[in-house]
Amino acid sequence: MWHETELRVRYAETDKMGIVHHSNYYVWFELGRSEFCRSRGFSYRDMEDNDGALLVVAESYCRYKSPAHYEDLLLLRTQIARIRSRSISFVYEVFRPSDDTVIAEGETMHIVVNRKNKIISLPKRYEAMLMTGSDESHAFPAELPPS
Amino acid sequence: MWHETELRVRYAETDKMGIVHHSNYYVWFELGRSEFCRSRGFSYRDMEDNDGALLVVAESYCRYKSPAHYEDLLLLRTQIARIRSRSISFVYEVFRPSDDTVIAEGETMHIVVNRKNKIISLPKRYEAMLMTGSDESHAFPAELPPS
Amino acid sequence: MWHETELRVRYAETDKMGIVHHSNYYVWFELGRSEFCRSRGFSYRDMEDNDGALLVVAESYCRYKSPAHYEDLLLLRTQIARIRSRSISFVYEVFRPSDDTVIAEGETMHIVVNRKNKIISLPKRYEAMLMTGSDESHAFPAELPPS
Amino acid sequence: MWHETELRVRYAETDKMGIVHHSNYYVWFELGRSEFCRSRGFSYRDMEDNDGALLVVAESYCRYKSPAHYEDLLLLRTQIARIRSRSISFVYEVFRPSDDTVIAEGETMHIVVNRKNKIISLPKRYEAMLMTGSDESHAFPAELPPS
Repeated sequence: MWHETELRVRYAETDKMGIVHHSNYYVWFELGRSEFCRSRGFSYRDMEDNDGALLVVAESYCRYKSPAHYEDLLLLRTQIARIRSRSISFVYEVFRPSDDTVIAEGETMHIVVNRKNKIISLPKRYEAMLMTGSDESHAFPAELPPS
Repeated sequence: MWHETELRVRYAETDKMGIVHHSNYYVWFELGRSEFCRSRGFSYRDMEDNDGALLVVAESYCRYKSPAHYEDLLLLRTQIARIRSRSISFVYEVFRPSDDTVIAEGETMHIVVNRKNKIISLPKRYEAMLMTGSDESHAFPAELPPS
Repeated sequence: MWHETELRVRYAETDKMGIVHHSNYYVWFELGRSEFCRSRGFSYRDMEDNDGALLVVAESYCRYKSPAHYEDLLLLRTQIARIRSRSISFVYEVFRPSDDTVIAEGETMHIVVNRKNKIISLPKRYEAMLMTGSDESHAFPAELPPS
Repeated sequence: MWHETELRVRYAETDKMGIVHHSNYYVWFELGRSEFCRSRGFSYRDMEDNDGALLVVAESYCRYKSPAHYEDLLLLRTQIARIRSRSISFVYEVFRPSDDTVIAEGETMHIVVNRKNKIISLPKRYEAMLMTGSDESHAFPAELPPS
């Protein structure tokens, strides 16, 4: 189940090609994660500040399908692809409703660490909130047994 | 054969975790491509401005292996992974010599387009310069037949 | 009369000090101008793309009064300070409602140019729309005669 | 006495106008401060990490005189304008040697704070190193008495 956030392309996000610079999609994905957490009932800031659980990015990927332009109103879709005890993967889709165009698709994989950069388990209550309404367990049946 | 460029981490590239924000690696990779072209005898700006051949990013990927910090002096290694008539792939490695640490590895895939965003072939003279000293043809023998 | 836009601080906008990096306020100011234009009935993109009138930044200034943090919900206030035939100045205020704190104040001065970077007059219809509801003429009485 | 650093414009620093986005000059100014400190014998990182003395930006200003473009090789000149016990001001000039053009001029004012964001005095040894070779005391004679 995708979580959706609207965003409007900023001038500073464009480059001399006249389109959104490809690095900004990762900033948007991060925005999507932040809003996804809020929609699940908690703030990622609190998770970091109060519980010392940080989601460092271990891998990131994006496929650019169509350029986005300044002032475009976009729909950013965010979903959890996978939760393991020490890692989470999110997938994203950037969509432009005005002409029904998929702009980009991406994925990020995160490791849970504490303030000393040691790998820890995701605190249970966050895992529970993140899983709410998720169909994650059905999304990757072929992964049993895990790779 | 890797092309190497030095870069020093800017303050603005860090985030509240105290490390380089993951989106900046893609800005560095782009810097690597730019320096790679210059080392092959041409400017990517000229290719864009004079020949109207643009390398739009079609896919980007990065694996983050160790965090980088403000003022770290890093070695950015860039190499061509593959040249096809209408696409080029680059691979990258970010390395910190002071403690012999691989910081990140990445890849970007580019499509050659003209100013009207139509796919074109990479002008031959740029292809020749890019291939100089490359062992690309030997790097992916298993790709025949293509996957 | 201030135009107000809400914005939420992005993770990527923070730096290792744990606060919003000071360069991002200028990106926000630009966002404020964009939304200001929209509230006056036109899109800054159209002005650029259709009428070839560009507002290049000639000067920018910001005073930072209190730090902003990740996920802060801020109010960005934008107003025209002055319109001359070939220049426009905007002023800005960044405010955090949750604790009634002024975060920053700023100003930008813009010159109107065409696509060839030649100074031109602001097209009359944009001037008219920008001035709607403005009390600009009363704001700077001491400027007559102009400096 | 200006400290000089070379920098080359990155693609990601341009915007759809085809020139360097105005917010990036503040990132460059910061780079100039960092290199200025290094040229005076210390690392700004160490000052922050080891001595807990942070230079938060209180004000920033830039005048844009001529646009800069992708791959331009620029000279960034940095100088201290003023040191007081609890504040420092830097001035900057961005210059393009290839056509002898001043691109921009700017200034930033900084307050010295500790990790708890309390104003402190600049540690003496840093003040001494920053003042090395400075003609600051002669630069602002009219400031006695202070305005």
